[in-house]
Amino acid sequence: MTPAEHRPAGPQEPSGARVRSVRRLTTRKHREEDGQFLAEGRQAVREAVAYGEVVAVWVDHDLADRHADLLTLAREHDVAVYEVGSRLVAALSDTVTPQGIVAQVTTPVATLDDVLAAAPRLVLVCAQIRDPGNLGAVVRVADAFGAEAVVCTKGSVDWTNPKVVRASVGSVFHLPIVAGVGLGEVTGRLREAGLQVLAADGGGADLQDYAADGRLARPTAWVMGNEAWGLPAEDAALADTVVGVPIWGRAESLNLATAAAVCLWSTASAQRAGD
Amino acid sequence: MTPAEHRPAGPQEPSGARVRSVRRLTTRKHREEDGQFLAEGRQAVREAVAYGEVVAVWVDHDLADRHADLLTLAREHDVAVYEVGSRLVAALSDTVTPQGIVAQVTTPVATLDDVLAAAPRLVLVCAQIRDPGNLGAVVRVADAFGAEAVVCTKGSVDWTNPKVVRASVGSVFHLPIVAGVGLGEVTGRLREAGLQVLAADGGGADLQDYAADGRLARPTAWVMGNEAWGLPAEDAALADTVVGVPIWGRAESLNLATAAAVCLWSTASAQRAGD
Repeated sequence: MTPAEHRPAGPQEPSGARVRSVRRLTTRKHREEDGQFLAEGRQAVREAVAYGEVVAVWVDHDLADRHADLLTLAREHDVAVYEVGSRLVAALSDTVTPQGIVAQVTTPVATLDDVLAAAPRLVLVCAQIRDPGNLGAVVRVADAFGAEAVVCTKGSVDWTNPKVVRASVGSVFHLPIVAGVGLGEVTGRLREAGLQVLAADGGGADLQDYAADGRLARPTAWVMGNEAWGLPAEDAALADTVVGVPIWGRAESLNLATAAAVCLWSTASAQRAGD
Repeated sequence: MTPAEHRPAGPQEPSGARVRSVRRLTTRKHREEDGQFLAEGRQAVREAVAYGEVVAVWVDHDLADRHADLLTLAREHDVAVYEVGSRLVAALSDTVTPQGIVAQVTTPVATLDDVLAAAPRLVLVCAQIRDPGNLGAVVRVADAFGAEAVVCTKGSVDWTNPKVVRASVGSVFHLPIVAGVGLGEVTGRLREAGLQVLAADGGGADLQDYAADGRLARPTAWVMGNEAWGLPAEDAALADTVVGVPIWGRAESLNLATAAAVCLWSTASAQRAGD
């Protein structure tokens, strides 16, 4: 399928400009300016090549043999592969023990219009989630339960941050992520498109009752608030209903990813029960 | 209720032997020998005093004012409070930014007999979970959904490890944790006691079907396998049924805590729907 004449045959030597173009991507400012980000490690590189738009794969030349399968996959997708020094690859990674392979990826631009045009039945809205590990974990959960999109409101952590990419275990490449929209706009647009907007927060309706009534089978957007301060009252008021996961033991709360897992599982499960 | 004459009035000066007794607890060997462990930070100290058996509370004298409420609570529970130097309290903590307060706690000894005597309806079995953050997170989930006990099989991380205690956000003090039992013995005893034993693993029965059949309303023990290698076939065979959380998107899997959350939520929810 891929014309052989376009496929790079072996390792290529990057120009100084190419090296500078990838080094810049360790800062948010340059990721935004250049519309690219980095995906480090075998799993992220594999998912990036399979589902993303990859500019180049950078591999530590001492570890090229270990990653030979991924380099072959990259070349099959017409992606340039640069075998370079360990120090450069390590500089592209923010982990203590880098795996020696990094993909340089074009940041996909997803808009609310695109998402709504697909008539989604399950959307996750992250309202000012600040911790990259948390955001990555909830993107993974959204992906697992078949959500059609994740929306990160203004004030959320940059989803192209390497910690988000890593914590998502490849899921940032699996579904559209819309960033930088105000919560009022998001909830309004989702509601116009026929989705019920539920805010996940303690003290609201009981998720079990809500599920029992069959109301979770409707097209639904879940709004999850910040890990530390939750959803301020004015933000919760933008939802149709506040719904909380009941705590039946003595724990004070659930963490963000486990709460999101229960909300999205319950909804996806209810939606699919009638299918 | 508490006799005033037994209540220490103000800060006490610890003896050298007391200081040594608490310093030892930073290693697993000494925690096991002494039957004590450490709970660091405000939330852990609060839950330890409320639900655990606390030998002493150690506080950084520069931060005693900030923790005055907890020190009062400790004294109300007849717990000795030692105001000591910052360096000692920091040495008792494994965090980068310690909160300056640590509880020295007697490790509660829970046995399978104790757990079964209470006729539990929901038990979580952790089969060789090695990562302390994961174990703490699943203990928190078990607590949230009202599980009556957590069992850690032989080969699991020590649940008194400070990272487990911290990740549990106080939940290690809320329910009995049985440690060091073989998986064969645990599953056999739970089954004899009338619980169905479900192993959470991909490729088994679909959790949604299983829930739809009403079978989750029965008294249930969930076995969760290791984060890296899951449940070996011989371990999964010890369960009555292998049940997996279906993945409806492109994610390869869920992480341990989110999978446990969905399994325990589904079960607790089914059990309580009939109540």
